[in-house]
Amino acid sequence: MQTEPVRVRHTDLDAFVRALLAAKGMSAEDAATAAEVFVWADLHGVASHGVAWLPVTMKLIDEGALNVRARPHLSIDMPARIVVEGGSGAGSIAMMFATNVACERAARAGVCIASVRDCTHTGPIGRYAALAANAGCAAIVLVAGPPFMAYHGSRVASLSTSPIAMAVPGPGGEPIVLDIATSVVPFSKLRQARTLGTPIPAGAALTVEGRPTTDPAQAFVPLPIGGHKGSGLSLMTELLTSVLVGNAILTDHIPSHGTHRHTQNALIVTMKVSAYRSEDAFAQDVAALGAMIKELPRAEGGEEIRLPGEQSAKLARSREANGIPIPRPTWSALLSMAKTIGLPPPMAQAT
Amino acid sequence: MQTEPVRVRHTDLDAFVRALLAAKGMSAEDAATAAEVFVWADLHGVASHGVAWLPVTMKLIDEGALNVRARPHLSIDMPARIVVEGGSGAGSIAMMFATNVACERAARAGVCIASVRDCTHTGPIGRYAALAANAGCAAIVLVAGPPFMAYHGSRVASLSTSPIAMAVPGPGGEPIVLDIATSVVPFSKLRQARTLGTPIPAGAALTVEGRPTTDPAQAFVPLPIGGHKGSGLSLMTELLTSVLVGNAILTDHIPSHGTHRHTQNALIVTMKVSAYRSEDAFAQDVAALGAMIKELPRAEGGEEIRLPGEQSAKLARSREANGIPIPRPTWSALLSMAKTIGLPPPMAQAT
Repeated sequence: MQTEPVRVRHTDLDAFVRALLAAKGMSAEDAATAAEVFVWADLHGVASHGVAWLPVTMKLIDEGALNVRARPHLSIDMPARIVVEGGSGAGSIAMMFATNVACERAARAGVCIASVRDCTHTGPIGRYAALAANAGCAAIVLVAGPPFMAYHGSRVASLSTSPIAMAVPGPGGEPIVLDIATSVVPFSKLRQARTLGTPIPAGAALTVEGRPTTDPAQAFVPLPIGGHKGSGLSLMTELLTSVLVGNAILTDHIPSHGTHRHTQNALIVTMKVSAYRSEDAFAQDVAALGAMIKELPRAEGGEEIRLPGEQSAKLARSREANGIPIPRPTWSALLSMAKTIGLPPPMAQAT
Repeated sequence: MQTEPVRVRHTDLDAFVRALLAAKGMSAEDAATAAEVFVWADLHGVASHGVAWLPVTMKLIDEGALNVRARPHLSIDMPARIVVEGGSGAGSIAMMFATNVACERAARAGVCIASVRDCTHTGPIGRYAALAANAGCAAIVLVAGPPFMAYHGSRVASLSTSPIAMAVPGPGGEPIVLDIATSVVPFSKLRQARTLGTPIPAGAALTVEGRPTTDPAQAFVPLPIGGHKGSGLSLMTELLTSVLVGNAILTDHIPSHGTHRHTQNALIVTMKVSAYRSEDAFAQDVAALGAMIKELPRAEGGEEIRLPGEQSAKLARSREANGIPIPRPTWSALLSMAKTIGLPPPMAQAT
């Protein structure tokens, strides 16, 4: 059995995902948007939101939970405030649309706050923060989703591992992008640890019965960073996104009476840097702060100090040049989807 | 030596702080605003930002670092975006002003983003988030300050323990208010632990030489929650607040060339609930989510599950009824300030 990953050129992977989504009825334009986000995740080392997620996307489409023909549209349209209705479409399409409009609005009003209501899985939210930064905006992105993480003091999955992304335009056109989950380890890492048998750090997960564990075979419920702090950030995200636009997620998942719809909501805050000060002066200050951080004395035995997003941007450059390594289980899933749909599979690079 | 705290009625404490600040040259209106925030902190159990901080305030005034006559004013004044110049005045005055204006703007534009530039110590930022919530707004408050916390992977103080507050109007007029530092334990708790000799949890602090420690006598540098996550949140806060408005704090504290000015900056995001949906429907959903969280199965041996701000709101009600316990060292400092200024000290409650 071959175990080493299959290396695929990112442009080939992108073409495959586009063809797959188009075959499921998505417009060429939307398929291109969604494919770009999937491949962005794989380029940046966020494998859980890359093509490994495609089988779930296919399943959601087949079940009718993801509407491939949904067009995001504005139900509230004010100079500095919009609500984007996702209509159960692909999260990436609603998020890219909302971020683009929020940046256009910020170019006129200085700032914009976009709410995204009822889309499916938003994927790698660093993508949207980076998009805003590349459009000259400082940005904050919050996303609410279904419950996987335990609320502080509880022993059951009751909160989303709500990701938070923040970004600013950076020196040399390379934005600084923070993209973190509010859990100690992401849900996807727990799944990965189960497959690989790698131990879970203490304080990071509970068993299904709600007992603290470091055993990868038993770790199913991620715990929040900083106890009540991460827990509070996630709860407030549900309130500021889902509840504010009347599309509550967490209470919809109460076992007794929830409908468990697959839905997500988000908040995107954009602030146009040039509305505050000269972009050059801003870039100089960002560079000075970045340099100061990079030059800090390291912890004993510590590695290079990194800025938010620095490592994943470096990885993306390397993968753009050398191809994306696709783990064998993901590769098999891609081949299987290609066969089902009747498409040629993505081309593996010669090794 | 008496060691038990001295109990003071919150109205008496408020009158004392007002008189003290007025004696230092502050207008009656500003002194009332600042006093309310100091006492709010003590009512809500945030002693480090209560009257225990008054001696620092006095010192800043005497050194000319805090301008008691500064009036916050708008240097950018757009329908959904303002920049408030603090002019080195009291942080509480700039923050209360900015929050009030941001809520007025949100009442018209639906949302507002207020930047606060160059004020002194902002104090308990939950106060401003609660103010916005009481005005019918969902709110996010970020504050940047001087470096106390270690950047992830570094062994020196290089980041603020940047607090984050979020709030929404809550059921029965009681807002839900999250107010957290991005450090595992606040800087003030390290100081307190040194006084009391209570051990520091593992992973919460470094010695001045940058070694991990649990010894309260050695713990001087707080560590961020979630390693690179808390670290990233704090760095991005400096970028989104200080650097965006051209008042960088962290790079100003580089030992080699910084001026170490005492200055803070903040970002206040307000979203008017009624601009999104009916306030009643929103309140019902908040109540349903709150009830769901409260009823979650508890962790083994766990205490009551609490919503953000629930415990401090309960404490405030109790202290409003029964007085605020002032620790003896703080009490001595109050008496000493009263004597220096020539004011009657606050009246202690009969025990």
